[in-house]
Amino acid sequence: MCQLLGMNANTPTDVMFSFTGLATRADEHKDGFGIAFFEDKGLRLFIDPQSALNSPVADMVRRYPIKSGNVIAHIRKATQGHVALENCHPFVRELWGRYWVFAHNGDLKDFHPRLHGAFRPVGSTDSERAFCWLMQELAKAHASVPSVAELSTTLRELLPVLRAHGSFNMLLSNGQALWAHGATQLYWLQRQHPFRPATLADEDLSVDFAALTQPSDRVAVVATQPLTTGEAWQPIAPGELKVFVDGTAV
Amino acid sequence: MCQLLGMNANTPTDVMFSFTGLATRADEHKDGFGIAFFEDKGLRLFIDPQSALNSPVADMVRRYPIKSGNVIAHIRKATQGHVALENCHPFVRELWGRYWVFAHNGDLKDFHPRLHGAFRPVGSTDSERAFCWLMQELAKAHASVPSVAELSTTLRELLPVLRAHGSFNMLLSNGQALWAHGATQLYWLQRQHPFRPATLADEDLSVDFAALTQPSDRVAVVATQPLTTGEAWQPIAPGELKVFVDGTAV
Repeated sequence: MCQLLGMNANTPTDVMFSFTGLATRADEHKDGFGIAFFEDKGLRLFIDPQSALNSPVADMVRRYPIKSGNVIAHIRKATQGHVALENCHPFVRELWGRYWVFAHNGDLKDFHPRLHGAFRPVGSTDSERAFCWLMQELAKAHASVPSVAELSTTLRELLPVLRAHGSFNMLLSNGQALWAHGATQLYWLQRQHPFRPATLADEDLSVDFAALTQPSDRVAVVATQPLTTGEAWQPIAPGELKVFVDGTAV
Repeated sequence: MCQLLGMNANTPTDVMFSFTGLATRADEHKDGFGIAFFEDKGLRLFIDPQSALNSPVADMVRRYPIKSGNVIAHIRKATQGHVALENCHPFVRELWGRYWVFAHNGDLKDFHPRLHGAFRPVGSTDSERAFCWLMQELAKAHASVPSVAELSTTLRELLPVLRAHGSFNMLLSNGQALWAHGATQLYWLQRQHPFRPATLADEDLSVDFAALTQPSDRVAVVATQPLTTGEAWQPIAPGELKVFVDGTAV
């Protein structure tokens, strides 16, 4: 299993603490990592086929406080597709003048859809194939960028097709919202006023969010496993699609 | 004027020396930088709206020897489009299951083509508009990824349309070739056996390529201005499209 991390916030927020928690798990997931940060419509994507434990790129991400409203990160344990840069998640495509970022945890069996549209995989993973198919179907369903609610409705129609082929824990964002689809293992958490200290589950590192935040700040975090102890992580049910906007589940 | 840097090599090569030379010029070009590295079909893209002189991302690129067969870098002086992440070059799109990377130096006046295809700008630059139009027209001209020679023929048909709107110094790559279109200022250089030492034009830094290379290595470098002294930089003529494959002009 790969590890996913997503963040959606109502004010640009860094994920250094959560990414450190994720990267700690990279010893079992040594086949690359990636992290994408939206800054308004702009996007930074850092990927590396090295383990997040050794990668100079991951080291920079841990130390450089990039503030973002929507983040998707992934550490990879290769199941389909060899270890190569083109197979690192998250994947990015442009649709309707917006970047779309996608990461997947799970395994799809026999998923070879007809890709007749403008989205083709560059690498050889089942995940990128699924992303291209989702983009193709979204492009068919809407002529220009629809509302978050309309997109969520369309995604709820499309996701059962993927679910029929295997486990499909997924994070998707276009910079306006974060969509999280549960299959086997995905948890989420909301942080808001009053903020409390949190301790990473895998590492002896704590942060007092009260000292770093404003009372109006709201942040939602999604992860394959709870990253911290002493916070109220909630499971996302198999087949459930959660939508986060401005740090809140909508 | 922005500054462009391109590299095409027959064996994966790092551009730390050339990028250092480029970044030195960032004091006049403080509105962001970007660099894209192909590793086979995979792509790393690093962009930052900060100056390459101060950016932690640029600092990592200067110190991490990423080896690549095709590199495109850009440092930006904003003329059209405000200073923002989504306006940083190079821009990336996927077409025919390949990533395409584009950077532009110059100014296009009144270029507002009909973009009815699958490529839309995310930011507000004339450059990204031109790239989206080029991708749209390439997609119309070929059903799947054509040969480098066929692509070059199509580009030679399309580029005069852009040239009619202003200056269009351009670098484009799909990981198989590097295309360099000259307008006002663009130079190229081939390095091959016997390799010689070179000194950066703007900084007291030298490198002895003979110590770092194999006799079979071949590298082509393209830049807005000659980066080194004592090497045979040749201008690319206005309207000329040069194509580099495996470190050689073809």
